[in-house]
Amino acid sequence: MDSFQTYVNANKDRFIAELQDACRQPSVAAQNWGMREMADKVLARLQKLGANARLIPIAGGAPVVYGEIGSGKRTLMIYDHYDVQPPEPLELWESGPWDAAIRDGKLFARGVADNKGNLMCRIHAVEAYLAAFGALPLKIKFVFEGEEEIGSTHLPQFVAENRALIADADGCLWEAGYKDVNERPVISCGVKGIIYVELHACGATRDLHSASAAIIVNPAWRLVWALATLKDADDNILIDDLMRHVRAPTEAEIDALKTIPYDEEKTKADLGIKSFIRNLTGIELLKKYLYEPTCTICGLYSGYIGEGSKTVLPNHAFAKIDFRLVPNLSPDLVLDLLKKHLARRGFHDIEVVLTENGEEVARSPLDSAIVRAAIDAATRVYTQPPIVYPTMAGSGPMYSLCQALGIPAVGAGVGWHDSRSHAPNESIRLADYFEGIEFIRELIERFAR
Amino acid sequence: MDSFQTYVNANKDRFIAELQDACRQPSVAAQNWGMREMADKVLARLQKLGANARLIPIAGGAPVVYGEIGSGKRTLMIYDHYDVQPPEPLELWESGPWDAAIRDGKLFARGVADNKGNLMCRIHAVEAYLAAFGALPLKIKFVFEGEEEIGSTHLPQFVAENRALIADADGCLWEAGYKDVNERPVISCGVKGIIYVELHACGATRDLHSASAAIIVNPAWRLVWALATLKDADDNILIDDLMRHVRAPTEAEIDALKTIPYDEEKTKADLGIKSFIRNLTGIELLKKYLYEPTCTICGLYSGYIGEGSKTVLPNHAFAKIDFRLVPNLSPDLVLDLLKKHLARRGFHDIEVVLTENGEEVARSPLDSAIVRAAIDAATRVYTQPPIVYPTMAGSGPMYSLCQALGIPAVGAGVGWHDSRSHAPNESIRLADYFEGIEFIRELIERFAR
Repeated sequence: MDSFQTYVNANKDRFIAELQDACRQPSVAAQNWGMREMADKVLARLQKLGANARLIPIAGGAPVVYGEIGSGKRTLMIYDHYDVQPPEPLELWESGPWDAAIRDGKLFARGVADNKGNLMCRIHAVEAYLAAFGALPLKIKFVFEGEEEIGSTHLPQFVAENRALIADADGCLWEAGYKDVNERPVISCGVKGIIYVELHACGATRDLHSASAAIIVNPAWRLVWALATLKDADDNILIDDLMRHVRAPTEAEIDALKTIPYDEEKTKADLGIKSFIRNLTGIELLKKYLYEPTCTICGLYSGYIGEGSKTVLPNHAFAKIDFRLVPNLSPDLVLDLLKKHLARRGFHDIEVVLTENGEEVARSPLDSAIVRAAIDAATRVYTQPPIVYPTMAGSGPMYSLCQALGIPAVGAGVGWHDSRSHAPNESIRLADYFEGIEFIRELIERFAR
Repeated sequence: MDSFQTYVNANKDRFIAELQDACRQPSVAAQNWGMREMADKVLARLQKLGANARLIPIAGGAPVVYGEIGSGKRTLMIYDHYDVQPPEPLELWESGPWDAAIRDGKLFARGVADNKGNLMCRIHAVEAYLAAFGALPLKIKFVFEGEEEIGSTHLPQFVAENRALIADADGCLWEAGYKDVNERPVISCGVKGIIYVELHACGATRDLHSASAAIIVNPAWRLVWALATLKDADDNILIDDLMRHVRAPTEAEIDALKTIPYDEEKTKADLGIKSFIRNLTGIELLKKYLYEPTCTICGLYSGYIGEGSKTVLPNHAFAKIDFRLVPNLSPDLVLDLLKKHLARRGFHDIEVVLTENGEEVARSPLDSAIVRAAIDAATRVYTQPPIVYPTMAGSGPMYSLCQALGIPAVGAGVGWHDSRSHAPNESIRLADYFEGIEFIRELIERFAR
């Protein structure tokens, strides 16, 4: 055991306690709950690390916690977010979402996998590096934002106002990463874009007795009919012209999928499903997963949803929908196509509300220095060889923070295949957390060269 | 002013206070909230009236409050219900649903129009009749059930077990009635049938990050696709074979519509709608309103419906749907057709759950004694002549309680066109309440002859 590992071992309990402390502070951006408290907590932790840190306010948004530490030939940006998803539905949590309870070697909390685990792991790795070796071999710039889970609404504004601060980074360590069902660490080199909208349908000025439904419009039906025009039962997106904009993956992009050992049987068993959409399998499954856009109902509401029956004709219905975007589909384009599609079909009574600004697609070259350093570091640290995803299926502000500035980015982190991000009983395994600290150390050393 | 009116005037404040007291007791059958307390309260009030009253228990259900009073050649059954709809959405009430607040001559409370106003009005009318004239000219049998708003689930069982008690009634005064937008009292001679179901779609064993939606089934979409096969955007019910069972209205039934002065413009203005479904108007509008079945989404839910955005792939979605039924459509038939329709289209993942037993259609002859007595009494009491509806658009257990026993029934009551039954800010106007007491007196006298 070398001095780094000795230090980590000696401080294990404190590291866990600090992670728990971070998870016990709610920071739900969608509900504007605890955001300032969490920002202050993260700032204090960076200052304790010795970083030159401060809150950088953004008009109308949650502040970015920014910190610099170390020096060297290269500069590494570390991007994480201190906000988390809403904890609902609360009744499905086995321990409270803010309890940060530890069971069977796992820490359960809203946001521990996405993304407070990575945020704290990286701070702890830098602390151990400094304690063990006295100095960092490169400069690190921490960019911890507070609006990732609501589409990083104000991050483009942060970039515009602080371009000089971050544009010299040589590479970025992105927020997410996990081990797959076969314990292979997953490294991702891109994100899908995203746009999140609500469709609202309105009927009479008030709810009515459902006896009136024979002659009075029902917005729930209007919404259902509108939604049914967006996607067919084979999961084909039907929005006029949308799929025509999607460029087919290149041969190189298809080749990149061939190295991914996606365990379909374990995934199906784990999720309790009989098959994937369209019964897809192999490369075709991965192509749809990583290279095709989605149109997903994330929420649906109308009328009475309590116990028993209420015979009501509702006067309002809405759906929350996210689209995950692939190259050549920008958020603006998709919003425009959606609105035109609905208008063309007479759904003038359905209002399309953009709940947050969208995010563009981003992909980093697989041969960039930061990607290579991450692959090498993972190969060194983990028992299983890493799997390299040319892109995640998820999204993030990688375009505005990195790609638009010419900074390659790579995602790797401490989640596992059952981390349940965005869902009840979110968790990480503590063993993964400490392996993650080792990984950051190796990444720092390799990227500094 | 005669002795009846003098008595009512002298007791006006107490009558209002007693009505408020009845409205302040929650009695939400769907939530099993306050049912026993309300039954006891109604029982005590009937006993105070001098009726021979008792609770008749029904295994598994809310008891019927039953009472007899008076004697004479004829027997009048008076049917009301002491349960009410759920009060949600609470935030839309201007005063609390259980406050029974009085503003501008109106009493606002959940259930005051549907149906505690009528229940108390009829008791108060009998009290005044006895006080003014010493005795009733007929026998009255009060049947106050506690499950009307959940489909009168156990009323058929009550009828089966207590047939001898009620089968000799010569006519029944049904629970509902109101004044239309032009202040004309509405008398109804029938009800539509009803069946209420939930459709449940399930996906993976848990909610997932919506990034997975490219390849994992989304039950919200499955539900939308299934729903879209049930009814088209012109409001045609598409369930296989369903409309083929509906018998066309007879010439006499069409003629009955011609006497109904339905004020379309006032109704549209009141509800804030530009047109009725299919732009219908005149007789065609009334035909659809009264003689056609409905298929109504009363509730719709999936995923995240809170503030802001949550990018979740839900693992559960459901819809609550009621069907209003017309002759030749029985609840069993519609349930069977619905299940076959969904199965035929591969929706084996959608479970159809019957939330309550259905109710059959019922219609009373327009020339029956109870209908004639109601029309005559209304003509005598109200400024405007009554409008006779061959059937309500709503439902109720009229078939099992009356038609199956050969008892004609008629609905007339103290609601107004903006009573907002089943919706927030439900109300009656107190002037209508006291006119309703006069109406009951006249109905008793005429039906007794």
